[in-house]
Amino acid sequence: MSEFAGLRTLVRQFVDERDWDQFHTPKNLASALSVEAAELLEHFQWLKTGEAAELGQAKLVEVRHEMADVLVYLVRLADKLDVDLMAAVAEKMVLNRVKYPAELVRGDARKYHEYKSKPDQ
Amino acid sequence: MSEFAGLRTLVRQFVDERDWDQFHTPKNLASALSVEAAELLEHFQWLKTGEAAELGQAKLVEVRHEMADVLVYLVRLADKLDVDLMAAVAEKMVLNRVKYPAELVRGDARKYHEYKSKPDQ
Amino acid sequence: MSEFAGLRTLVRQFVDERDWDQFHTPKNLASALSVEAAELLEHFQWLKTGEAAELGQAKLVEVRHEMADVLVYLVRLADKLDVDLMAAVAEKMVLNRVKYPAELVRGDARKYHEYKSKPDQ
Amino acid sequence: MSEFAGLRTLVRQFVDERDWDQFHTPKNLASALSVEAAELLEHFQWLKTGEAAELGQAKLVEVRHEMADVLVYLVRLADKLDVDLMAAVAEKMVLNRVKYPAELVRGDARKYHEYKSKPDQ
Repeated sequence: MSEFAGLRTLVRQFVDERDWDQFHTPKNLASALSVEAAELLEHFQWLKTGEAAELGQAKLVEVRHEMADVLVYLVRLADKLDVDLMAAVAEKMVLNRVKYPAELVRGDARKYHEYKSKPDQ
Repeated sequence: MSEFAGLRTLVRQFVDERDWDQFHTPKNLASALSVEAAELLEHFQWLKTGEAAELGQAKLVEVRHEMADVLVYLVRLADKLDVDLMAAVAEKMVLNRVKYPAELVRGDARKYHEYKSKPDQ
Repeated sequence: MSEFAGLRTLVRQFVDERDWDQFHTPKNLASALSVEAAELLEHFQWLKTGEAAELGQAKLVEVRHEMADVLVYLVRLADKLDVDLMAAVAEKMVLNRVKYPAELVRGDARKYHEYKSKPDQ
Repeated sequence: MSEFAGLRTLVRQFVDERDWDQFHTPKNLASALSVEAAELLEHFQWLKTGEAAELGQAKLVEVRHEMADVLVYLVRLADKLDVDLMAAVAEKMVLNRVKYPAELVRGDARKYHEYKSKPDQ
């Protein structure tokens, strides 16, 4: 079984055992995903460099768990919306390549619509 | 190559072509992940039932793309922190089974610490 | 003293007593604000109607405290960026009135750019 | 009229003119607040120092507007939940003073539960 199919099955089983499907509207799952992403961010919010070394080993374990939670809700939402995540990334990366042409944006972190107003283009 | 290894390679290549690694501290990636999760949530925020049908086809395409963005940043963060996402989920699901025993939480969506104060336990 | 000036002073004093100004870059404060907003959202994420009555009294107290945290970080960020929040709202409401003309959007919750493509306009 | 009372009236009028109250369950408003907080954060996510100067004047205008949006949704949520924001902050600051005693946390940005396990306390 592929990794994503395996995750989907694992999460489905966990949810079914708890009769939690009733809470899992796509809207609620999108909220939960957003909340988990913020719990992940919380571990980094006061760091100065923001690098892994500054985080420390104990925090890194918590960070791993928050990342797992994000993935679990993402996989669950994909299941409910019938989204193939691998295909979605492939599709989005094509769009990103158009929005952010390498030769134009190299070393520059602005959003794509901000490039349009560059005077020399 | 496994799905996650494939995604990691895809994202690395995209980043390297743009010389964006310099922006990708774990802290910044955690912010970006959180921002993408909120963009995903935005599509659902005023829905009444929150079900997929209420979303509509055009919105579902946008939702797929936001889900892809969330996954891309999650994979990138995992790469920078040397986190094996499949292992992290396996590990977290064990903890979740302890925190949320099926027989105790069935049909109940409260957080684990709220169960502790139930008078009849 | 006006309410916002009072809040600003209160927060400044709290921060100075703890020597926390060193952590309060606008970027870090924006992260913290976002994290607090997610903690607020967490209390609502599994609700079915999403109405106040469904929340219950005990949760409402927690919600009040999360709202206070959001306001505290917003006031702090405004202080660091020299933003007059009352003036900012006045300014933004003018823009909102242009983006969302009452006669056009009545009873409709779509984003402003979605109106542009309505066939009958 | 006090500042918060003025804001509440301003927002109520804007909402009523558009017949948007039907979308304003506390749950939906908490989502919208969280989404706006993330839009605010987005302007900071790739900054290196995270200081105001790095943001630039044009971005600062956008940041002001996102801050206004956050405040508008916070005021609206407070209106729907009958929360007095000034009282909520006063109440929360008392709790914060207990959780973060100045002499204990000076110059330290950890969360309150992390202090409990410090070996020398």
